[in-house]
Amino acid sequence: MCAAPLLPLEDALRILAAAFPPPATPEIRADRDDPALDLSSMDGAALRSQDGAAPRRVLGTLFAGDDPAAFRVEPGTCVRIMTGAALPPGADAVVPVEDLVQGPQGLTPAAPPLPGAHVRPRGSQARKGDLLLPPGAPAGAGHTGLLAQVGLPTPPLARLRVGIVPTGDEITAHPAPHQIRDSNGPMLEALAHALGAEVRRLPPLPDRPEAVRDFLLGLGDLQILLTSGGVSAGDKDHLPRVLEAMGARILFHRIRLKPGKPMLTALLDGRVILGLPGNPVSSYMNALLFLPVAMAGLQGRRAPDPWKEGRLAAAVPNPGDRPLLHPCRREGRDLHPLPSQGSADLVRLAQADAFAWVPEGGMGAGPTRYLDTL
Amino acid sequence: MCAAPLLPLEDALRILAAAFPPPATPEIRADRDDPALDLSSMDGAALRSQDGAAPRRVLGTLFAGDDPAAFRVEPGTCVRIMTGAALPPGADAVVPVEDLVQGPQGLTPAAPPLPGAHVRPRGSQARKGDLLLPPGAPAGAGHTGLLAQVGLPTPPLARLRVGIVPTGDEITAHPAPHQIRDSNGPMLEALAHALGAEVRRLPPLPDRPEAVRDFLLGLGDLQILLTSGGVSAGDKDHLPRVLEAMGARILFHRIRLKPGKPMLTALLDGRVILGLPGNPVSSYMNALLFLPVAMAGLQGRRAPDPWKEGRLAAAVPNPGDRPLLHPCRREGRDLHPLPSQGSADLVRLAQADAFAWVPEGGMGAGPTRYLDTL
Repeated sequence: MCAAPLLPLEDALRILAAAFPPPATPEIRADRDDPALDLSSMDGAALRSQDGAAPRRVLGTLFAGDDPAAFRVEPGTCVRIMTGAALPPGADAVVPVEDLVQGPQGLTPAAPPLPGAHVRPRGSQARKGDLLLPPGAPAGAGHTGLLAQVGLPTPPLARLRVGIVPTGDEITAHPAPHQIRDSNGPMLEALAHALGAEVRRLPPLPDRPEAVRDFLLGLGDLQILLTSGGVSAGDKDHLPRVLEAMGARILFHRIRLKPGKPMLTALLDGRVILGLPGNPVSSYMNALLFLPVAMAGLQGRRAPDPWKEGRLAAAVPNPGDRPLLHPCRREGRDLHPLPSQGSADLVRLAQADAFAWVPEGGMGAGPTRYLDTL
Repeated sequence: MCAAPLLPLEDALRILAAAFPPPATPEIRADRDDPALDLSSMDGAALRSQDGAAPRRVLGTLFAGDDPAAFRVEPGTCVRIMTGAALPPGADAVVPVEDLVQGPQGLTPAAPPLPGAHVRPRGSQARKGDLLLPPGAPAGAGHTGLLAQVGLPTPPLARLRVGIVPTGDEITAHPAPHQIRDSNGPMLEALAHALGAEVRRLPPLPDRPEAVRDFLLGLGDLQILLTSGGVSAGDKDHLPRVLEAMGARILFHRIRLKPGKPMLTALLDGRVILGLPGNPVSSYMNALLFLPVAMAGLQGRRAPDPWKEGRLAAAVPNPGDRPLLHPCRREGRDLHPLPSQGSADLVRLAQADAFAWVPEGGMGAGPTRYLDTL
């Protein structure tokens, strides 16, 4: 019905990742020398290197955070020191505990220490005012830690607001034999929640273009919308046409993947619309692939890479003209194919530890990439 | 100071994963035949196969969710049908749109259809009452979808309550040169939040055993506690001794990893205590490795596998006797080592896309495994 060539999955992932502006993170400069003093990098004794292997009387102990001015190391003395503690005035080296001998005259180094041994010198990491990270660096826990270290405000712990709406007149809470329950809604809700989103599950959308349009006009403060169904090329698949008519920027529609061909991704008024196929496994698979990319894009984090390298333990046929993601039980890196009945097979999805990549034409046992389930 | 052999990282990860009971998920049985009726697996026409390639008059259209009793397919007729719709009475096969020719007498199949063609027969996935999943199967989004499909209640969307407390007298909001700000607290908070936890950041703990003990007695409804610092073998490292005195079950203490050797993991009154080292990169690294395992264990999900296979693009020395996780910029699967200054180097942590595994003795350019940062 639609002759447009299908987009390879890697292109689709790249296009979505590229749809976001660079991270809005600030420049980070050192607010003081780092470390701010000469610090010990070992538990041991702080002493004068020029006094060689002579015994030293212990003046006391310095822990990380202690003011080193409490002591002054003179010839014949030393201070016990813990990792991270600042060197007391007079000391220029640290001898680790394991190289110290306790005797009647104090502590004796096993060998003459070198100047600066086991010392992290003041400013060796950075000088006050140094540019540590330029603006626009990816956000993340490490970035937050660095902001805190130099005394800059850390970003608020926001959760992305993700809406989930199944589409289709066949969905009902108490189904007749020709109807079905909504399994995609709870499944996608669990997936998005596990990915850290604040999820709002919305009632199923009927198969009418006006209903789809009215719904899309009332998304409120949602930042990402997951729809399931209504995105293929059938007469009741209104989402692509309605989005286009509303001026959404369609990033892509229809990808070269089984299950999941009808997948659509669009930007609408700053929101990300992930139009997932209606079949449960297709819906799950595309959410697993694209939702983390959309979330990272909106949060200024690095685009995640979902692939791992494993080994298919048995042959999997794939007569179609699209690469297949096949449910597997995983043991270490060995992927044991489950007897999937296709994109409606929620049992195999629930059993799967991973989905293995099987190229067009199928493949025998051997190395391939895979996705872990969530 | 401590002669006990260090635990290899893989053993530590396995021990933590094995510390949790099996998932408390219920048995799942089919509440009806699946599918409940014969369904079309294509968009096309539902018809009688025994009438061969003769033209058929179109009676109407059936969409997924339509009641198929609206039509009866007699000789010389057919019903347009969409993927997922139930076959109308009388029809036993579906011919896909692309194999149909529209003519004056209706739709003509390009070839005589076979009985059952493009039909998902009633009960072909499961029969009513069939055991779909035994109790104790791993929880997860697919499991939730299957529960919803058969009409069972889905688990609530709970977030694990994770407390974060730095330890150490050197931590203060307005540091003198021998003091430092708390960078681990905000960093670990961001990490745990990104992993989906409900995080509570607590004020730094002073280096006194009674303070540590009182704190551990007042954990309230926290399910996981991340501490940073105070877990090594120094005089002010009270956490291991206090935990032992309180009857905690120490899962392991000290692992063969750089950075991160002092890592401690314990169970205390049903809570998981992750005693992270105090250095920022050690703290981050061990949280990245162990927190997802603890969270999955408490939630009955599969233990996550953090490793990917990549290629170190340049040699990295590692003179120590522990495997090293070295910060890298990642391009595809190529890992470019950053000039790290060790476990206090938050700049390199913030810049790193990944941490590459470098065995004892170091390695040249070549294949190795790695962790993505978060």
